[in-house]
Amino acid sequence: MPSELRKDPLSQRWVIIAAERARRPADFDSEKEDGPPHFDPFAPGNEAKTPPEIAAYRTPGSAPNTPGWRVRVVPNKFPALQVEGTLNKRGDGIYDRMQGIGAHEVIIDTPLCVRSFTELPDAAVQEMIWMYRDRLVDLGRDKRLKHGMVFKNTGKAAGGTLYHSHSQLIVTPIIPQTVQQKMEACRQFYEYRGRCLICDLAAQEMEAKVRVVMDSGLFLALEPYAPRTPFETWVLPKNHESHFEDIQQQGCEELAFILKRTVLRLEKGLGPVAYNYMLTGSPFDSGPLPHFHWHIEIVPRLTKQAGFEWGTGFYINPVPPEEAAEFLRRVTL
Amino acid sequence: MPSELRKDPLSQRWVIIAAERARRPADFDSEKEDGPPHFDPFAPGNEAKTPPEIAAYRTPGSAPNTPGWRVRVVPNKFPALQVEGTLNKRGDGIYDRMQGIGAHEVIIDTPLCVRSFTELPDAAVQEMIWMYRDRLVDLGRDKRLKHGMVFKNTGKAAGGTLYHSHSQLIVTPIIPQTVQQKMEACRQFYEYRGRCLICDLAAQEMEAKVRVVMDSGLFLALEPYAPRTPFETWVLPKNHESHFEDIQQQGCEELAFILKRTVLRLEKGLGPVAYNYMLTGSPFDSGPLPHFHWHIEIVPRLTKQAGFEWGTGFYINPVPPEEAAEFLRRVTL
Repeated sequence: MPSELRKDPLSQRWVIIAAERARRPADFDSEKEDGPPHFDPFAPGNEAKTPPEIAAYRTPGSAPNTPGWRVRVVPNKFPALQVEGTLNKRGDGIYDRMQGIGAHEVIIDTPLCVRSFTELPDAAVQEMIWMYRDRLVDLGRDKRLKHGMVFKNTGKAAGGTLYHSHSQLIVTPIIPQTVQQKMEACRQFYEYRGRCLICDLAAQEMEAKVRVVMDSGLFLALEPYAPRTPFETWVLPKNHESHFEDIQQQGCEELAFILKRTVLRLEKGLGPVAYNYMLTGSPFDSGPLPHFHWHIEIVPRLTKQAGFEWGTGFYINPVPPEEAAEFLRRVTL
Repeated sequence: MPSELRKDPLSQRWVIIAAERARRPADFDSEKEDGPPHFDPFAPGNEAKTPPEIAAYRTPGSAPNTPGWRVRVVPNKFPALQVEGTLNKRGDGIYDRMQGIGAHEVIIDTPLCVRSFTELPDAAVQEMIWMYRDRLVDLGRDKRLKHGMVFKNTGKAAGGTLYHSHSQLIVTPIIPQTVQQKMEACRQFYEYRGRCLICDLAAQEMEAKVRVVMDSGLFLALEPYAPRTPFETWVLPKNHESHFEDIQQQGCEELAFILKRTVLRLEKGLGPVAYNYMLTGSPFDSGPLPHFHWHIEIVPRLTKQAGFEWGTGFYINPVPPEEAAEFLRRVTL
């Protein structure tokens, strides 16, 4: 059964009803400690255990779906969204629905069975990031698709179901609500002040210094002013860039450098913490935007979302970001 | 240190920076199975182990902070917000902040050390609900405070830190973002159609029947059309009521009946699941609203929020609500 997109009329959020995913063995699983798996479907030699590859960086001459790759992209085996079909938007009384058209890909960061991409050399992290870009550029050509979100679930507590370091990409036929809200806030700021909100934010943080974790020259890693969780950390380009896909070679190198070391600070400072990161960029078809600025949010999963957070969208955070930043700056790498 | 409310300029969500809560022993705790505690601070006889009581239903003649109570309300020992002080709203460059004024109360549902309120007789559940109302009415008199959210975190996976059945109430000096968004969607619907969205929703669900779990006469328990998680369930009054605080005796009796049996269906059908529920009503000072309608959302914590959900506000749900409703209807109570 293909999945279906349904809109909640009250909260205006969309939900993907993906019955196929219920068959995933790890769903409804109780909490277990992470550890290397007995069988690794992402290991070289096990290419037949995943759906056929969509893209890979591989040794010249090596055939698709065989070893020889350094980064490999496959469709998610239990996809939330699929490329085939038509959107078929329609109503159902007061409700709205459409077919689950889109893409759900898994980016296998490395042939090595490591838990976190921070265990990889910088050059491998660069290739992982470069592959994010390549996939976004490719999928952005499909006129039905509006927005792509690259993310990572590392560790069980972060929703990770496979140990071997990987990233995911979900491309949706609408701009997701959270992205829309951010873009709207940035648009309003731009209309009022004539500047990009995130450029202003970066400038203010560089001056105040109290929430900065690292500065690589082109990029800044910082604790946001109002973090949802203890040690939530953002990585963003200092100079205005609306689309991540426009990243250049120098940017990719520096992003790999700062992203790896920022997550490493979290892992060394807090122990091998479960974490998510999310790369939020601009809609595919928008052209360069003067008011929106791509960024990466890293969320270590130390606390649980409880009833108050679910009901209000408010978060309660016991760790002031100034203290978190100071702690992370002091971690020895 | 009093807590501080900070607004994230990008997502426009507020965060409560509550450094005091970092001292809670259960924070950053790893997952553990629930079980009755060795020491129960909410048991009769241990009244001195909580801050002094704010309200209680107790045997005539019994003194405050001694046994003899049936429902007891105390301030949260590690409050996210406190009543004392002034809001002191101010800017910080591009950022906004205010003091963490509000209330954070714990409603001890029962003197019995049970895990879930579903183990209580209906009469006790009625008193628990009646206390929700009493506390909202009392706190609503404070002109600095705008909105109250009653919620429950039952089980570790739901953020519960104490086993003994209890509810919480957090009252905020602003209308929380999620509530504001719902109210805005309802206002737009009302402007366009001249009817309450949730009244229309209840009518459509009663006609379709496929997502209804229970119907008590005055109330409906249903699986929402676009549930965030498997088995998310709502309980709402069929007739229009903007403020939960206006509930009458008959309504309280029926709400206790349907709420207990709905959660019991989840617990019997899925096992002793961790769950949150959230009671969303209207702002204190609004007067009756023709477009907004209070409701309770029950979220069993079976799946984890991962990177995609954090980044987009989209949810991926592997269980269609029609199947969940059928499953829950068949549970024998």
